[in-house]
Amino acid sequence: MVKVAILGATGYTALELIKILLRNPQVQITAATTRQEGAPPIHTIHQSLAGRLDLACEDLSPTQIASRAEFVFCCLPHVASMEAVPALLAGGCRVVDLSADYRLKNAAVYEKWYGHAHTDAGRLPTTVYGLPELWAERIPPQKLIANPGCYTSASILGLAPFLKQAWIEPTGIIIDAKSGVSGAGRAPKLNTLFSECNESVAAYSAGNRHRHLPEIEQVLSDACGHSVEAIFTPHLIPMDRGIIATIYGRLKKTATDAQLIAAAREFYAGKPFIRVVDHLPATKDSAYTNFCDITVRQARGQAIIISCLDNLIKGAAGVAVQNFNLMCGFPETTGLLI
Amino acid sequence: MVKVAILGATGYTALELIKILLRNPQVQITAATTRQEGAPPIHTIHQSLAGRLDLACEDLSPTQIASRAEFVFCCLPHVASMEAVPALLAGGCRVVDLSADYRLKNAAVYEKWYGHAHTDAGRLPTTVYGLPELWAERIPPQKLIANPGCYTSASILGLAPFLKQAWIEPTGIIIDAKSGVSGAGRAPKLNTLFSECNESVAAYSAGNRHRHLPEIEQVLSDACGHSVEAIFTPHLIPMDRGIIATIYGRLKKTATDAQLIAAAREFYAGKPFIRVVDHLPATKDSAYTNFCDITVRQARGQAIIISCLDNLIKGAAGVAVQNFNLMCGFPETTGLLI
Amino acid sequence: MVKVAILGATGYTALELIKILLRNPQVQITAATTRQEGAPPIHTIHQSLAGRLDLACEDLSPTQIASRAEFVFCCLPHVASMEAVPALLAGGCRVVDLSADYRLKNAAVYEKWYGHAHTDAGRLPTTVYGLPELWAERIPPQKLIANPGCYTSASILGLAPFLKQAWIEPTGIIIDAKSGVSGAGRAPKLNTLFSECNESVAAYSAGNRHRHLPEIEQVLSDACGHSVEAIFTPHLIPMDRGIIATIYGRLKKTATDAQLIAAAREFYAGKPFIRVVDHLPATKDSAYTNFCDITVRQARGQAIIISCLDNLIKGAAGVAVQNFNLMCGFPETTGLLI
Amino acid sequence: MVKVAILGATGYTALELIKILLRNPQVQITAATTRQEGAPPIHTIHQSLAGRLDLACEDLSPTQIASRAEFVFCCLPHVASMEAVPALLAGGCRVVDLSADYRLKNAAVYEKWYGHAHTDAGRLPTTVYGLPELWAERIPPQKLIANPGCYTSASILGLAPFLKQAWIEPTGIIIDAKSGVSGAGRAPKLNTLFSECNESVAAYSAGNRHRHLPEIEQVLSDACGHSVEAIFTPHLIPMDRGIIATIYGRLKKTATDAQLIAAAREFYAGKPFIRVVDHLPATKDSAYTNFCDITVRQARGQAIIISCLDNLIKGAAGVAVQNFNLMCGFPETTGLLI
Repeated sequence: MVKVAILGATGYTALELIKILLRNPQVQITAATTRQEGAPPIHTIHQSLAGRLDLACEDLSPTQIASRAEFVFCCLPHVASMEAVPALLAGGCRVVDLSADYRLKNAAVYEKWYGHAHTDAGRLPTTVYGLPELWAERIPPQKLIANPGCYTSASILGLAPFLKQAWIEPTGIIIDAKSGVSGAGRAPKLNTLFSECNESVAAYSAGNRHRHLPEIEQVLSDACGHSVEAIFTPHLIPMDRGIIATIYGRLKKTATDAQLIAAAREFYAGKPFIRVVDHLPATKDSAYTNFCDITVRQARGQAIIISCLDNLIKGAAGVAVQNFNLMCGFPETTGLLI
Repeated sequence: MVKVAILGATGYTALELIKILLRNPQVQITAATTRQEGAPPIHTIHQSLAGRLDLACEDLSPTQIASRAEFVFCCLPHVASMEAVPALLAGGCRVVDLSADYRLKNAAVYEKWYGHAHTDAGRLPTTVYGLPELWAERIPPQKLIANPGCYTSASILGLAPFLKQAWIEPTGIIIDAKSGVSGAGRAPKLNTLFSECNESVAAYSAGNRHRHLPEIEQVLSDACGHSVEAIFTPHLIPMDRGIIATIYGRLKKTATDAQLIAAAREFYAGKPFIRVVDHLPATKDSAYTNFCDITVRQARGQAIIISCLDNLIKGAAGVAVQNFNLMCGFPETTGLLI
Repeated sequence: MVKVAILGATGYTALELIKILLRNPQVQITAATTRQEGAPPIHTIHQSLAGRLDLACEDLSPTQIASRAEFVFCCLPHVASMEAVPALLAGGCRVVDLSADYRLKNAAVYEKWYGHAHTDAGRLPTTVYGLPELWAERIPPQKLIANPGCYTSASILGLAPFLKQAWIEPTGIIIDAKSGVSGAGRAPKLNTLFSECNESVAAYSAGNRHRHLPEIEQVLSDACGHSVEAIFTPHLIPMDRGIIATIYGRLKKTATDAQLIAAAREFYAGKPFIRVVDHLPATKDSAYTNFCDITVRQARGQAIIISCLDNLIKGAAGVAVQNFNLMCGFPETTGLLI
Repeated sequence: MVKVAILGATGYTALELIKILLRNPQVQITAATTRQEGAPPIHTIHQSLAGRLDLACEDLSPTQIASRAEFVFCCLPHVASMEAVPALLAGGCRVVDLSADYRLKNAAVYEKWYGHAHTDAGRLPTTVYGLPELWAERIPPQKLIANPGCYTSASILGLAPFLKQAWIEPTGIIIDAKSGVSGAGRAPKLNTLFSECNESVAAYSAGNRHRHLPEIEQVLSDACGHSVEAIFTPHLIPMDRGIIATIYGRLKKTATDAQLIAAAREFYAGKPFIRVVDHLPATKDSAYTNFCDITVRQARGQAIIISCLDNLIKGAAGVAVQNFNLMCGFPETTGLLI
């Protein structure tokens, strides 16, 4: 039995984490935290958990958490996360951090994009980025895993086969990404009100102003051994769940659709959560699952790569549990193939 | 008083046309057609017209239509349209054709993309493409106008300032477009069922397989005086109305966001339906209007142009009425600024 | 030319008001207020007004407003409204108040439902409730009109023909109402976030806890001359616009569907915004219009009345302009039949 | 290992059935049928099954099905179902029939509501209605179970505690129900197109014209031992999944909200899929689950019962698997608590 704590349990990602962990009989959720007063039962925060989990959300210190749990999923916002993680590790917990705080290797890059000096910069160079499809072997021994961003996973999983196998140029890549609204979190804000987002699409952070861009470029550059550069434009879509990244890369050589699909399929052979498909996938096909659906077309010397996943599952809670499974020695798919 | 007929009155575009025309007291809608039997009152086909228009939808021949109307909006599907238009013109009607049948100049290109030999090919070279923002002066004297496609208008209106003023390269353009579902028409099909489209985004016709691509390239090539080439990827978005085209073009020279916005603003000075804005527009801002909202950002040598419009209005019925207004001598904005 | 001010211009109702008023060439919007600092241009608050209205939203006192405008639409929240209205009237303005502050005749009832003592209670007994379909003749001479609530209008317009003509019993009425989310306003709140409301329906304020109930009962009791009692259950629906009230009333005598429909049609003869229809109306039929669509069915001794309207237009801004038109001597439909 | 066939595998209910059955390692899906030619792989019909189930959809006779499967979920439309079921039973299969064909006890009532003479009427009186919360003990020995309708389950589960315990009168009940669009099936029809349903709510079959009404009344009358009569008004809601039934029943005695909630909670004690909650449940809370969430409020002598469930799971595929589990001796919750 693994005793697990969820830090920052009021958000959408935490809810998905809990639902997934409830499917693993060897997991016991022993703590869930919130800064709300009064230790509200979790089903008053997430009504869908009524009858599923009898647990109060408490305002706990890292020391208290470490006394109750051996594994922590940290769903705090950035900055808050790097304030909690060192104490959790010191308390003996293993941690999957779902914030952005440990994803970037370079503290200066972190500060530039997040507007805050990194307070645990010493840990950045050695923290493993938890994308199991690229380097599952690095994950099991870790104490701390930086869980990938949602746009990041969709983009990297789509691009990796074609960059690592040198089908496309590593510069001039265009990632036009579209996400459901749950990716924007559960804090009340004008721009995520129903009446603002519904029946509307808009780009945001256009002109390479989105924080997932440096993460995408860093991971792909690491994976390929050379610099990768992209334009990244995210869009908000009036739906709950799902990301589709439509990615354009200049082909280095002539290729048919079938050759490109075969290359991706071979690259991901044996990976249980990547489905390389012949058809054009819809986000709905992978919604509420841990699958990432990928296909590719070519036209006029460009590869047009399509990558779809559920932003809260494969883009957050699902991959977090993949990492947890690998770290704990459970089968990678535990709780995730439903 | 202009007597107007609507051919193919059961679709969404026809409904919008009727609503717009009802705002012009100098227009009388004298005929609306359908192949449905029994001459159903139009409010049984479009319930929103209850109390607004007392007219039966009839199965009328071109001769019958010409005896009742001097101006015809042809909302028939392609092929059906080119079967009706010659007789309408012969009967003395002036026509705005909202199908694709008269948009392409080259009958072979038409046949390649629409899978049907053109039966009125002689009229293609001289038919004017009805995009008033590019050539309003061509439109007034015409008997027949080819009304633009929805993706086409969004794409061309976004690109024209930057191509005609040589800010961007004419090749390697990427148009990543997203449309609401009403653009797919009102004929019952599996892929436009609510439960298929809702809560989902998917690309379709990826790999330059969409029929609006040759139209975009033809019009922009004509407008610029040299060949323009693009990759075009449309996506279906779970909303009723609106298109956003996110367009990537390689800058020929260094430019700031402000310079690019100013260039677009100058290009469209005096055009009542183009709003060049500083912010990133949402499709909702122009939904149910005849506006096209445009802005631009730059990053890493690319211009990222955003163009939004309502696919049924500025992308279909609204521009059709702009053309009608110009042809009939009404102010261009009649019925369209609400 | 009537000089008009909008108090509380940042909300959805104010936006609709502005759009409607822009269609009346005899209206000039001379002031719009907000408590936001810096006098932001209104198109930065409502992007859809870009190019339509060049006006700053200012933090103005009633005296300043009265110096700029002769007519005021007060879109402030309750309590704030009754703090502003007396000064506006004293300054010589005529006012349509869209809040709940002047709807209830009895200050004690107001205090019970709104949790706040009424500070302008002397004006309650004489303030006219602005439902033109019931008493258009009362409205023209007024200085102050209490504009109806959205659920209230849908419910009253559906019930009035059958209560006033004594087709149904005045007690035991059940109003099961469903509203789009825009009715909940534009202030960021957890329960109106996209990811909370989307893909979900829930009842709220069930058990006669909603503030529109006393308003419905008061107006219907006044209209009928005897007490009317109902159960009222509102539901939130994942759509922007529209209310449908499904109303159950016990028939006092046997009646066919046709007789009941005919009774409603006769009751509303000559009313330009009420469409009594034979079919079951959808909220979409009246969305973005000032129409209220009504029909009725009977079964097992119950009349099942269906009443649909756009909550922001016929349920708020549209009826406000109807009242304005009547007060200013414009035709009742000015700006409202589009 | 239980060999299972799915008849009529192309619809939404069949898809959910397959997803649930894939979670039971003791089930093998050995056949799936369609009338489409060419035996398409099931993942071409349901893209979300890519990589999950490698099976062709075939056009099989009952004899062929019986040779491959011992248990059949019949997802055919009504009429088609009663043509297949006798042969399946004759072939030795046990059957859960998800159509309406075996739900009504009286062939004349069936013919009245379904417009078709019943061709297997002899089996009606003895076929068990598969609502495990009311009579789990009847289900295990059956060869054929009539699976409940979606509105029916929501309505009956909400009403049963209060009717069977005589809290409310058995007549004059009003069921105002709202369903997501997936309940209308996957056959392309105008009224379930995205652009028709989206952003709209409408009642349909108002005036007791919906086929689930006689089913509701029959089952409740059987359960209570006396006649139960209701008004039933279904509405279509712009969402994929979920039903909320808001039910009004006249209280026979004074009761508080707490007493009524306690009565329901006691009634359903030990039932794993019924959650009697204090809050007002949203359909989203039970979406994608087999839970039915119930609460109740009182006002003016009426009980206002709220009952929510996922129409495709607890309203169709989930309860079908509950029945299957009971018939096969699996724990009732197998595959259903995720």
